[in-house]
Amino acid sequence: MKQIKGRKRVIIENVYPEIDCGKYPVKRVVDENVKVSADIFADGHNVIKAVLLHRKKGNGKWNETPMKHLSNDKWEAVFKVTRTGWYEYTIRGWVDHFESWQKGLKLKFEANQQIDIELQIGARMMMKAREQASSKHRNKIDKWIGFINEMKHNPAAAAALVLSEEVSDVMYRCADRKDAAVYEKILRVEVERKRALFSSWYELFPRSTSPVPGRHGTFKDVEEVIPLVAEMGFDILYFPPVHPIGKSFRKGKDNSPDAKPDEPGSPWAIGSSEGGHKAIHPELGTLEDFHNVVKKAAGHNIEIALDLAYQCSQDHPYVKEHPEWFTWRPDGTVQYAENPPKKYQDVLAMNFENDDWQNMWKELKSIVDYWIEQGVTVFRVDNPHTKPFRFWEWMIGEIKKEHPDVIFLAEAFTRNKVMDRLGKIGFTQSYTYFTWRNSRDDFIQYLHELTRSERREYFRPNFWPNTPDILPVSLQYKSEAAFISRLVMAATLSSNFGIYGPVFEFCLNVPHPLREEYIDNEKYEIKHYDWKSMTRMRKLIALVNRIRKENPALRTTWNICFAETQNDHLLCYGKTDDEKQNRIFIAVNLDTTFTQGSWIKVPLQEMGISPYRSYNMLDLLTGNSYSWNGEWNYVELNPNIFPVHILKVEQ
Amino acid sequence: MKQIKGRKRVIIENVYPEIDCGKYPVKRVVDENVKVSADIFADGHNVIKAVLLHRKKGNGKWNETPMKHLSNDKWEAVFKVTRTGWYEYTIRGWVDHFESWQKGLKLKFEANQQIDIELQIGARMMMKAREQASSKHRNKIDKWIGFINEMKHNPAAAAALVLSEEVSDVMYRCADRKDAAVYEKILRVEVERKRALFSSWYELFPRSTSPVPGRHGTFKDVEEVIPLVAEMGFDILYFPPVHPIGKSFRKGKDNSPDAKPDEPGSPWAIGSSEGGHKAIHPELGTLEDFHNVVKKAAGHNIEIALDLAYQCSQDHPYVKEHPEWFTWRPDGTVQYAENPPKKYQDVLAMNFENDDWQNMWKELKSIVDYWIEQGVTVFRVDNPHTKPFRFWEWMIGEIKKEHPDVIFLAEAFTRNKVMDRLGKIGFTQSYTYFTWRNSRDDFIQYLHELTRSERREYFRPNFWPNTPDILPVSLQYKSEAAFISRLVMAATLSSNFGIYGPVFEFCLNVPHPLREEYIDNEKYEIKHYDWKSMTRMRKLIALVNRIRKENPALRTTWNICFAETQNDHLLCYGKTDDEKQNRIFIAVNLDTTFTQGSWIKVPLQEMGISPYRSYNMLDLLTGNSYSWNGEWNYVELNPNIFPVHILKVEQ
Repeated sequence: MKQIKGRKRVIIENVYPEIDCGKYPVKRVVDENVKVSADIFADGHNVIKAVLLHRKKGNGKWNETPMKHLSNDKWEAVFKVTRTGWYEYTIRGWVDHFESWQKGLKLKFEANQQIDIELQIGARMMMKAREQASSKHRNKIDKWIGFINEMKHNPAAAAALVLSEEVSDVMYRCADRKDAAVYEKILRVEVERKRALFSSWYELFPRSTSPVPGRHGTFKDVEEVIPLVAEMGFDILYFPPVHPIGKSFRKGKDNSPDAKPDEPGSPWAIGSSEGGHKAIHPELGTLEDFHNVVKKAAGHNIEIALDLAYQCSQDHPYVKEHPEWFTWRPDGTVQYAENPPKKYQDVLAMNFENDDWQNMWKELKSIVDYWIEQGVTVFRVDNPHTKPFRFWEWMIGEIKKEHPDVIFLAEAFTRNKVMDRLGKIGFTQSYTYFTWRNSRDDFIQYLHELTRSERREYFRPNFWPNTPDILPVSLQYKSEAAFISRLVMAATLSSNFGIYGPVFEFCLNVPHPLREEYIDNEKYEIKHYDWKSMTRMRKLIALVNRIRKENPALRTTWNICFAETQNDHLLCYGKTDDEKQNRIFIAVNLDTTFTQGSWIKVPLQEMGISPYRSYNMLDLLTGNSYSWNGEWNYVELNPNIFPVHILKVEQ
Repeated sequence: MKQIKGRKRVIIENVYPEIDCGKYPVKRVVDENVKVSADIFADGHNVIKAVLLHRKKGNGKWNETPMKHLSNDKWEAVFKVTRTGWYEYTIRGWVDHFESWQKGLKLKFEANQQIDIELQIGARMMMKAREQASSKHRNKIDKWIGFINEMKHNPAAAAALVLSEEVSDVMYRCADRKDAAVYEKILRVEVERKRALFSSWYELFPRSTSPVPGRHGTFKDVEEVIPLVAEMGFDILYFPPVHPIGKSFRKGKDNSPDAKPDEPGSPWAIGSSEGGHKAIHPELGTLEDFHNVVKKAAGHNIEIALDLAYQCSQDHPYVKEHPEWFTWRPDGTVQYAENPPKKYQDVLAMNFENDDWQNMWKELKSIVDYWIEQGVTVFRVDNPHTKPFRFWEWMIGEIKKEHPDVIFLAEAFTRNKVMDRLGKIGFTQSYTYFTWRNSRDDFIQYLHELTRSERREYFRPNFWPNTPDILPVSLQYKSEAAFISRLVMAATLSSNFGIYGPVFEFCLNVPHPLREEYIDNEKYEIKHYDWKSMTRMRKLIALVNRIRKENPALRTTWNICFAETQNDHLLCYGKTDDEKQNRIFIAVNLDTTFTQGSWIKVPLQEMGISPYRSYNMLDLLTGNSYSWNGEWNYVELNPNIFPVHILKVEQ
């Protein structure tokens, strides 16, 4: 019985957000809010109070934010995180005896009951509070008690005093909280830098950057391309693996199992006699060349993202140095990747269940350390769902201890729960199903899944209209309108987005005859592009990225609200910043062939638009301007002219 | 890194049921099932296996039930609890390398690939499994390995063997589970006796049982009434407080603040110079008389339920013996209960925040101990939500350690979250909002809240059509049909139900002019009833209780499924036992004045009724029989004849 806190009457439960009973943190970026709610109540009918306690981890002292009772015992408060690292929060609640007393006094006074004894009870409570009070408050309390005693024959005056805001305020501050209940867990927030939530990715194959057809592109060539990428407004430039490529079982054009001698192979078949994951493919250049790329990119405010693909070609030095990290077959050959009956002889999966797993984990982490030393701050992780979750949790955790700014993007196109788990255990961002969403209702449902469920607390989506492995049906053989609408949706539905270029800017869209991917996949051959040719799409990308940067409403994914439309070819949604100062409304015609129009219902309240005054809609893409009024307004989009609006609300 | 279980690849999360992160147990009664589900998955594409581990607490060894993958990484298994007390459960999952290998082998074999090396890999796995095997299995494995080696030139024969059920079974049993993941928590089930879920309560005021008008009823009179209560089929007979009643500020008829000298006062104003919570009101009789009531009731398979009202009249011995347990006002008077501006001078709330709270808790618990010694096994707890939750959690927990069979019914007509919490912390059953639900959709929504949310795991509803404090509008001035339909709904929607009699059997329903309660509330006066007069309602109650006892489908609350009806005056629902052998279908006309009919859609699948054969519906109330066919059938109920069907499905 000694352990029981018998006088703590307040109950605090159902705290949100709380991921897996607090096992995993909530994620935020700098300057985001953490809105915390909980069910808080006590026995009986006393007034209760609750505060949200929050602090930067290690700071010791808690900050207190009073919580507000919404309804049905649900309370809420918000705090803002302003620095990267870890924050903590919990909740404290207590019975407010003084306010309970005030409430009763007021009712009795209004019912014309005798309140002289009541006033004495109040004075007693003040005397008790006095013990906890600062000297300033103590003086006030003394004065008030004196007044109550003087006003024995004028209870109305005494009641007016003790019900005053000043008395309430001082008594709140001096409240005895020794019987306050504190929630049993301290919950955590991992705060990352802003780019974790707001980033524009551009993917290119360095070997395809040569201006001379047929020549292998180099990091020096990449340097020439960087200004073009910067011009389009991207801030992360992502390279597929840049390491030596295996020669054994090298894949040829179109995934052919028999490469011709001059074929370059897939960059994901990592490792040869020239080195492994810490080496650079000699034809791309030297480590110094790589440093120059990083430097040049930094000069354009671009970060380099490397591909982290924990797999090896049969020629990878690990195979000889650490044979125990691989699986060996009874005939003495090493086990290559399979998806029976398919065989991927150019790639070996590593055996995470081997007896030397600890050394293997350390070595795999050292690869990340190595590239961080070379200036890399962002990693796009290849197929993380085929390596153990416990490995990622450990590895990312260890890296972030020293480098909290490093970003990991999970390339896991797989089942929901697996993708969720990768988010929980530390991945900063994740690829999504955006690529395969097509109808209005699909988009709305998917965005609600991402932004209106607990998932928003730990899973940051990154929307890609295409990748080297995916040319979705929505782009295949389609007109430029399809590219424009997919671009605008990726860039405005989600604050993290990316494209695989330059095939996107050039609107290349001939699919493989059998698969939902590009014909003659760039993974297996060097391509030549006319990098400097300016397309309308390139200008448009630059404009969309500028609009994203200039409008805070587009710098987050969590603020989306959809508009009702009467034509399901039209997808319309609004986004605003926290203060509803910056308000953007987007309309997309999902039909890339025909003009579609609809009355649409603007979510005025969510967007902070007054229904009593007309408002101007300025199209940030075209410069056109429309005068709108109230909820229902008409939108018509001709895909052959322009399939989208990005409208800025001006009222 | 040493603490990391690096080779455990399986993830187990989102386990259901798990109440407040395992802080509170799931509740069951003897012979109920516990269906456990979880999200279970691993990295990669290996086959995984999972088992539900469960045991009676203290038994040490776990029982294993294989879990089944439903879809989308959700797995499920069920175990049955067969004894009162505590059970535990958790989950173990592992990668099944042998089955993964079998799967690959099968695909390769079917694709006509070479499988000789594959077979050697399988033989190796068998050799390894042999180390864990029993001698019986070891012999089999030796034989199989021999066969594989012999069949070098007949891989088809070897493949047929290694894919056989017998090999799969032995290899499953011998699997190396050292890298199995175990869920991080051991979750608990509190198993109570069957009456916790299936009980019929009857409430009467002992003082109103005298056969002589004007005379105070006694326990001896109660003995005469017990056979009538038994005849109606009730198994719990609940008395309002039987303790001495305070004289100071005693309430008179209709809650009058000025009782006349001969008025008996409210039984809830507990305590006088004649004793407190452990004493018996002298006019009711002696402790021996009480023992005789308990004995007589037991002879009819009826348990006595006492009212546990932790409050005192101003004359209660505690007030003098433990003044510190009460709140005193500056004028030297003791603080009575209030709901300003209302005053309840006949009742003192106890101060649970007093410095001597530990002794007070012990004394309050000793009251329960005392009555358990006198043969009481059931307590109806008055207003538990006005005493601290931590007190109940401790008190009920302590009592149940020694007396796991004791039942506590929470009389908390209050907010959802408060009622939920009382369930979580140990109350066996709870009063509900049933009393105020009236429309078809209200009932469906409320029953879904109770039975299809997590609440079903810890909150057992008890449905009362009336109480001494509540004569709901649905009964006021209504015909007998209202009583019949409320009775049948209470008794079949919920497996726990009760009535306050004999006003219910007599269909008394004149309300107080101002409140939703009976005129001249029995709390403040002695009533005289003609206990022995037989009404149709009394016979009907007996029949309904017999139907409940004879039909397992009605012995649980959790199995309800509603039928679609095209007339919202008709509420229709089915219930079946686990095996779908006993199937009951209920139809209620909620309109107590007019005949209502509707086509209704019988939930055939949920009720295990074949759509291919007609079925007979036998009305257990009237003996009428109907031949039904398929989903849609017609029901018509005339409230002036009979407003309900309780149909037994015969097919």
